Amino acid sequence: MVAVQQERSGREHILNTARDLFTTHGFHQTSMAELAAAAKISVGQIYRLFKGKEDIIEALIGADMKDRIGKIEELRLRLEAGRINIEQTFEHLVLLSLRDKDEALSFDILAEALRNRPVGETVSAMFQRFRHFLRDFACVANPALSGEALDGAEEVILACIFGLGHRSLSLPNLSDECTARHAAQMIVAALKGVS
Amino acid sequence: MVAVQQERSGREHILNTARDLFTTHGFHQTSMAELAAAAKISVGQIYRLFKGKEDIIEALIGADMKDRIGKIEELRLRLEAGRINIEQTFEHLVLLSLRDKDEALSFDILAEALRNRPVGETVSAMFQRFRHFLRDFACVANPALSGEALDGAEEVILACIFGLGHRSLSLPNLSDECTARHAAQMIVAALKGVS
Repeated sequence: MVAVQQERSGREHILNTARDLFTTHGFHQTSMAELAAAAKISVGQIYRLFKGKEDIIEALIGADMKDRIGKIEELRLRLEAGRINIEQTFEHLVLLSLRDKDEALSFDILAEALRNRPVGETVSAMFQRFRHFLRDFACVANPALSGEALDGAEEVILACIFGLGHRSLSLPNLSDECTARHAAQMIVAALKGVS
Repeated sequence: MVAVQQERSGREHILNTARDLFTTHGFHQTSMAELAAAAKISVGQIYRLFKGKEDIIEALIGADMKDRIGKIEELRLRLEAGRINIEQTFEHLVLLSLRDKDEALSFDILAEALRNRPVGETVSAMFQRFRHFLRDFACVANPALSGEALDGAEEVILACIFGLGHRSLSLPNLSDECTARHAAQMIVAALKGVS
């Protein structure tokens, strides 16, 4: 039990260090030796817990996904309980995306995912989970949506939320809060205005 | 004159080779020696035309921007001449983004832009150009839009079009054409539905 806990905290320590280093210097520009030095452990200790850099990237994606899905699940529960309406649901959803500030690491992971099948499958599985939530939320905003119009709505809202989470290079004029409010209004207007 | 033409075609040859190599293997994973070998020239010949890899990336971004801006300018002229309506304008605009298939290279460039100031400034300048067009198109869809609502619309549409251009990892269900049609409908509905 102690060994399992030690292994878990060892993994977490390596993942936290890796996240910082990869974000600053880039995934491909960081060697295992640099990661070991920053984490103050040996390269061998890293390899006892991870198969390699790819395995570390997959663990980082997995941790982010678990965290994000947990928060979206919470939003769904609040929506279903009538504590927030659908526009507020989208507003919170957009805010989650806007507040995720690991953009450089995110672009590294996405580039890697397009060239490395296992990483690609992990990332695609994450998008599939988001799609299910977005589809459900779209149907709450406009219960008449179905077929291709619903598929299109899912596609466009997913793209919009992804884009808002990767907007810093576009030098935005509006704050996160303000952007989330306008985005939610526009998403609900778009969903109600199509069929 | 012949020397200028030779330099231009030399640059184009290197840029085309670099685009292919960077897309397949990644920007950081490709050395100047590999680029020279693939282009069947010496490393010295590359350095006579480009200061380094960063300079090549900036030239690639510049070429893409010129191409994309030219196509959007053409759309604006067709809109102003009444040959297409605003929904068709957005449909073509989204299609331009969807058909851009250099996603892996694009993610590499965006990651680099967040860590490298000159590259970041080039990318941000490109986004600024797009913002002007989007703002104009938003006002055509809804002439009553102004102030913060217009800023929000610009922000959300930019994110949406960016996201649609980087969607392949999300395993889309709809074709480019079908997605562009639904996206345009939703964008116009969103613009008309807010104020």
